[in-house]
Amino acid sequence: MQFLGSHVLSVDQFERGDIDKVFEVADTMAPYALRQKVTRVLEGAILGNMFFEPSTRTRVSFGCAFNLLGGDVRETTGFQSSAIAKGESLYDTARVLSGYSDIICMRHPESGSVAEFAEASRVPVINGGDGPNEHPSQALLDLYTIRKEVEHKGGSLDGLRIAMIGDLKHGRTVHSLCRLLALYKNMHVTLISPAELAMPESYIEQLRVLGHSVSISTDLSQGISGVDIIYSTRIQEERFQSKEEADLYRGSFRLNQAIYTQYCEPNTVIMHPLPRDSRADANELDNDLNHNPNLAIFRQTDNGVLVRMALFALILGVEKQVDKYSRPVNWYCSRSNQ
Amino acid sequence: MQFLGSHVLSVDQFERGDIDKVFEVADTMAPYALRQKVTRVLEGAILGNMFFEPSTRTRVSFGCAFNLLGGDVRETTGFQSSAIAKGESLYDTARVLSGYSDIICMRHPESGSVAEFAEASRVPVINGGDGPNEHPSQALLDLYTIRKEVEHKGGSLDGLRIAMIGDLKHGRTVHSLCRLLALYKNMHVTLISPAELAMPESYIEQLRVLGHSVSISTDLSQGISGVDIIYSTRIQEERFQSKEEADLYRGSFRLNQAIYTQYCEPNTVIMHPLPRDSRADANELDNDLNHNPNLAIFRQTDNGVLVRMALFALILGVEKQVDKYSRPVNWYCSRSNQ
Amino acid sequence: MQFLGSHVLSVDQFERGDIDKVFEVADTMAPYALRQKVTRVLEGAILGNMFFEPSTRTRVSFGCAFNLLGGDVRETTGFQSSAIAKGESLYDTARVLSGYSDIICMRHPESGSVAEFAEASRVPVINGGDGPNEHPSQALLDLYTIRKEVEHKGGSLDGLRIAMIGDLKHGRTVHSLCRLLALYKNMHVTLISPAELAMPESYIEQLRVLGHSVSISTDLSQGISGVDIIYSTRIQEERFQSKEEADLYRGSFRLNQAIYTQYCEPNTVIMHPLPRDSRADANELDNDLNHNPNLAIFRQTDNGVLVRMALFALILGVEKQVDKYSRPVNWYCSRSNQ
Repeated sequence: MQFLGSHVLSVDQFERGDIDKVFEVADTMAPYALRQKVTRVLEGAILGNMFFEPSTRTRVSFGCAFNLLGGDVRETTGFQSSAIAKGESLYDTARVLSGYSDIICMRHPESGSVAEFAEASRVPVINGGDGPNEHPSQALLDLYTIRKEVEHKGGSLDGLRIAMIGDLKHGRTVHSLCRLLALYKNMHVTLISPAELAMPESYIEQLRVLGHSVSISTDLSQGISGVDIIYSTRIQEERFQSKEEADLYRGSFRLNQAIYTQYCEPNTVIMHPLPRDSRADANELDNDLNHNPNLAIFRQTDNGVLVRMALFALILGVEKQVDKYSRPVNWYCSRSNQ
Repeated sequence: MQFLGSHVLSVDQFERGDIDKVFEVADTMAPYALRQKVTRVLEGAILGNMFFEPSTRTRVSFGCAFNLLGGDVRETTGFQSSAIAKGESLYDTARVLSGYSDIICMRHPESGSVAEFAEASRVPVINGGDGPNEHPSQALLDLYTIRKEVEHKGGSLDGLRIAMIGDLKHGRTVHSLCRLLALYKNMHVTLISPAELAMPESYIEQLRVLGHSVSISTDLSQGISGVDIIYSTRIQEERFQSKEEADLYRGSFRLNQAIYTQYCEPNTVIMHPLPRDSRADANELDNDLNHNPNLAIFRQTDNGVLVRMALFALILGVEKQVDKYSRPVNWYCSRSNQ
Repeated sequence: MQFLGSHVLSVDQFERGDIDKVFEVADTMAPYALRQKVTRVLEGAILGNMFFEPSTRTRVSFGCAFNLLGGDVRETTGFQSSAIAKGESLYDTARVLSGYSDIICMRHPESGSVAEFAEASRVPVINGGDGPNEHPSQALLDLYTIRKEVEHKGGSLDGLRIAMIGDLKHGRTVHSLCRLLALYKNMHVTLISPAELAMPESYIEQLRVLGHSVSISTDLSQGISGVDIIYSTRIQEERFQSKEEADLYRGSFRLNQAIYTQYCEPNTVIMHPLPRDSRADANELDNDLNHNPNLAIFRQTDNGVLVRMALFALILGVEKQVDKYSRPVNWYCSRSNQ
């Protein structure tokens, strides 16, 4: 795909070379995110950060990424009750709001809404999550994290062994991740879930057709042995008929340090799209893993900033100018030494 | 009026020369809004964007306009429940908040509240809508759009023929627009509404006293023939006793391409303060008008940014320095070619 | 304490020398807050302004202070419902959010929450109020105001005579202020409240142990005669079992110009942490005091910006570079002449 001036709505837009390009640019953003340098390449540009559904982390991550490039952020945080209650179409909303910024990130509760909005928008739109449908920047940051973690250990994305755990039926992130993994070679994917929460057949089928190996299990200990990456997920309670139904599955697959030590290869990387459910009855990833250096869940969210900076830079065509507008940081930064 | 350091609270503040000045400055803002250039003239200045009532478009439009001049925006988006529930007076709120910014835009549900706030404020205040009362920047952007549209066709504001349609009783925007039109010469105003939703007599009276021609009609097709501008409005459901009462009038005056073609002069401009109600039972302006080049409703909202930039520049006295702090845009802008 | 890279969570962190340092830096911020100069020393830095409880004045004050230093602000304004409802721990929230900014201000309804958050944060955290517990920047701005007001009249903090009035049981601000006053010499503190709303014994005890004089009274007129500072507070209705119980005490101690003239020494300074309850049944400080030049309540909130700028500058280590990045203001400022 061509990034310049384009919308980013779905992981289906990407070929392997596109992902390489995003990751290459994301790598160059690290010094800015770590506050070793400041860049003002987008000074004067405006991001319309339109979150028509509550969100803290994704919203702030996008806003922060734009600020780190020097741009300003105008924001909406919650349901756009007034105009929609007055009968405004998504077409009109898009025509109006796209007059206020250079690029828009949008989250909306309805599947397909962001693509519909993008069609009417006069500026590029990044899908920040349209209900149960797509959240492409999350998939990219997951894959970027996997690549960094395995390369750090001398591996590569090709030949990756990954176990996905939990609510594989409803989890938007594991679906998108399957789509992206399918672009690489020789994946070994283990899917661990209650039978009722299994990965939809279409994702499995696509992986297999492309020659990847997929094994299905309901046993945690067996599934997590012999993998490079454990990708744990939350029971998506909000997608069940009732809390009671969700409770049947909550806490089915708990990983803690003892289980990790017993079953996993050394340096198996642990990931999670967050938020992780740390309540006693869920506890997908126990807090005793917090000091395990292979727990990569916060490196994931940090990488999200890099990937979002890369998307902004590529779409607005400034990826080669970032350093030109850079300068040293003149304040004290604890994080730059991390 | 003198703009420098002044509040903008009501359209009654303006004489014709004041409006000319705002429009002249607004014209100079176009290259910045279209992203042909960036200016940093207000870098370091802070807008207090105080919206004590939900709003997306007006709030973001003001914030965007300030960012486009290089300034920062601090914002409140919703009812200031805490302090008011604790018994704070508007006087105190104004004294406190005006210590935090260089200029304030304020929306508040109560008529007269913004003027009361402004009296205690230590910085200039722009009324962003005080309930059913005033919303002067909307009236200015409407008039600015009319002027641009008719001048584009070789006409001028003097001698304008305009039809206002819909809920003329409750519509704040048509009331303010009447006040502004009255400042020009030889207006021909046609008012089309259900009898129960007629324009209040005082507005009609003022126009007539000043020598303008006002005709009143309940017939859409007749009213829209022979005008330069059609200004359609929404049934202001929230001002009726009940939804049922509003429903009696909803959809009374629907304009679509077929009606337009049959009754309007070529190039009759279609305006609407937005949001337009696109639900099937209302549909004031049909979506089949979306590709009619005379549909100016999105040019209206774009012009809103220019007019608000002009107000900020005039009140803060930087209208002549905007270009001095300008530079080229270094990112890719789809909109600059529009 | 060392400010560089440190959290500011409690007034108990401060020794007298630390406070002197904050005030010294706060003094240097006045030209920027008064818009005589602009500084861009923190251009490129990001404040995470995380208000997990509604707030307008404190939130905007912190954000404004950061903007005045040239930095950007990313913000949350309300309960972080989504992630917490999904079972996320404060530890996780802190690890994630601290990847998005250079420094965080946080307000949260639960006592101790901000300290718990700070422990997991990778960047410095300023406590913007954790329920009934601490709000250290408010205490600092109160003390800074007292110092400025009495020094203006030739006095000093040592030997200060102060009357605290109202709900001394629940008022977080008077508790913290007592802690800070205890660091100075020879305080004369008069505590005026209904017996049921008396200052908790521990605060009184600490003052007395350190040699300060504390007198307790239920009589307003007697208590306010012979003091330098009157510090009035609101009945903290939200901390009572019922509104009815709070009503028993509301309006117990009303100060107005007549009482002030009759009982106070000339130039006795009137303070209040705001919001003041101006409803007829409360009216702690009557509006007829608004033109009394000794009413310092709005100078307090203005001073809050200076103190918060000082905290940011000290924590991020730029307090000596502020002027280096300064330049003249190029827009019209009404406040610079105040």
